Amino acid sequence: MAGGVGSRFWPVSRTTYPKQFLDVLGTGKTLIQNTFDRFKKILPVENIFILTNESYFDLVKEQLPELTDNQIIGEPIMRNTAPCIAYGCYKIKQLNADAIVVVAPSDHLILETDNFINTINKALNNAETNNCLITLGIKPSRPDTGYGYIQYGDSTLAENLHKVKTFTEKPSLEIAQSFLASGDFLWNSGIFIWNVNAIITAFDLYLSDMSDIFRDGEALYNSANEKEFIQNAFQRCPNISIDYGIMEKAENVYVMPSEFGWSDLGTWASVYDLAEKDYVGNAVINSEKVMMYNSSNCMVNLPGDKLVILNGLHDFIIVESNNTLMICPKDQEQAVKQVVSDVKQKYGTKYI
Amino acid sequence: MAGGVGSRFWPVSRTTYPKQFLDVLGTGKTLIQNTFDRFKKILPVENIFILTNESYFDLVKEQLPELTDNQIIGEPIMRNTAPCIAYGCYKIKQLNADAIVVVAPSDHLILETDNFINTINKALNNAETNNCLITLGIKPSRPDTGYGYIQYGDSTLAENLHKVKTFTEKPSLEIAQSFLASGDFLWNSGIFIWNVNAIITAFDLYLSDMSDIFRDGEALYNSANEKEFIQNAFQRCPNISIDYGIMEKAENVYVMPSEFGWSDLGTWASVYDLAEKDYVGNAVINSEKVMMYNSSNCMVNLPGDKLVILNGLHDFIIVESNNTLMICPKDQEQAVKQVVSDVKQKYGTKYI
Repeated sequence: MAGGVGSRFWPVSRTTYPKQFLDVLGTGKTLIQNTFDRFKKILPVENIFILTNESYFDLVKEQLPELTDNQIIGEPIMRNTAPCIAYGCYKIKQLNADAIVVVAPSDHLILETDNFINTINKALNNAETNNCLITLGIKPSRPDTGYGYIQYGDSTLAENLHKVKTFTEKPSLEIAQSFLASGDFLWNSGIFIWNVNAIITAFDLYLSDMSDIFRDGEALYNSANEKEFIQNAFQRCPNISIDYGIMEKAENVYVMPSEFGWSDLGTWASVYDLAEKDYVGNAVINSEKVMMYNSSNCMVNLPGDKLVILNGLHDFIIVESNNTLMICPKDQEQAVKQVVSDVKQKYGTKYI
Repeated sequence: MAGGVGSRFWPVSRTTYPKQFLDVLGTGKTLIQNTFDRFKKILPVENIFILTNESYFDLVKEQLPELTDNQIIGEPIMRNTAPCIAYGCYKIKQLNADAIVVVAPSDHLILETDNFINTINKALNNAETNNCLITLGIKPSRPDTGYGYIQYGDSTLAENLHKVKTFTEKPSLEIAQSFLASGDFLWNSGIFIWNVNAIITAFDLYLSDMSDIFRDGEALYNSANEKEFIQNAFQRCPNISIDYGIMEKAENVYVMPSEFGWSDLGTWASVYDLAEKDYVGNAVINSEKVMMYNSSNCMVNLPGDKLVILNGLHDFIIVESNNTLMICPKDQEQAVKQVVSDVKQKYGTKYI
């Protein structure tokens, strides 16, 4: 899934260039390229499909040149994850009626690739032999209030495959702390594994109108008429997430407690946490010529050829992209959404 | 005089583009253009000469297109103000043996043009009838430690033309405070008025070697051979200021206590003091698209088309020019000289 248009990395991310297409950590590859490389170690390239807004078709093609055009699936409008996944799964089912599917965001960070591959392979095995919807839950290391949480019980379907009790959206700090203390809550990674028939059965049960819409196209997927059909189908879909539409309601949802150095890289602060820092805590990403005086715990991300002199800044984000400079305390970065809204009101979409 | 290469306005000022050629306050005219316009109200344009490093010849021509080439006097090397003034005065004397000369820096701010013109005209009258060296002293409004001070006594040569007792270089704060309290100290503006013969006599007395060097060219000034002569003459001159070489030594130095809204604009802080500010003290110069959140008493000077978001900055200078961004506390700006030196060591002269 690579359809997001998140504004939290503004001004580096833009509507025309969202986070998954950026090298947020300055590693030399964009997030979607890293995700693609991980999955190449699990399955043949021809089995990888990218679901994205059709306006990003060329960006995906450019960043992942190994893909054929049919592997880049354009969504005509943004309708959240449920229609996206329904479309993808119906299309895959037309290619392989018993396919086992991994659904994964393209803009997450995973540090421990081997653990990730092992986890996915175990989940694929479980999904092949069981009519279940598997989600990967990350063992939490802190009471993060930016993540959703999954509570699991002792009941297992297989080794390390626990029945889900509840899904909880972003909690307050107090609640997040109690989740962490209880030991039976995991972070919701948004990575799903299931047999294509299991998920379509779940759509039939919990989002039956949506399932009907995409079932109507069974004869058209992977044909010249698919695009026209999808243009119309998406118009008729509600905006709804897979979590809300299916995972929170289905009876056969299981979670695999996992650890593979995961972050959703949802905020500049999360990028700072993961970035390499000097001995006074300054993280410099992409920028090549930064001179710091009496500054600490800052994150700097500016064009590489720009000379940057910082003096007396502590715990700031200094980021420039697309002719926009933002200087903001690290703990104020929730304000970025407000800033983006203000910028839009003041200058239109030029800078968004 | 427009030969300075001051680095205190780095990164806006550069060796190739020093302060006098910048619109430091964002008024729509550069400092040298403002200075030129002031003097046009005092004397005919053809009597205005610009002494500058020869590498700035084209810049002066571009910014002051009313001047002929002969009015732009190029110094082959930087040798401080004494050789510059000796050269200028000998050259002017060749044109007019009894000329009364005003020597003024090109990069100062003067807010009260009418008072300035009146003061200069009075000084010109005094210099015409007296063999004296006149300097303008600014009535101090604060114990500024960045200025030189002139102490004057009750003895006068004419109305408001006082004999100078002492010159003092930049004092400590305590001393500056005592100067201010005593009431007989003025800021040294570096603006001089004298008869061309009075200053050449002073050169003969106090810098006789230098006077001899330039007297040797008497037959060559304002001729095709001037340039070659000057190339050689400057090589033989010591690096010495007019204050140290003559004003502090001569017996016939007089000061006119003056008030005309003067600043030497020596630092970003002095520019901030003079700039228009919003109700929380933020001064925005040149920049057109600046959005501030929880920020106060900042000075922002960035390219006009750049969108700038500031959050949580108080008492900072945020300045970008020539692909260099500097963020620095206002009270740390003395550090700029050190920064420039560090940049030079690290990246060579590319950014200087």
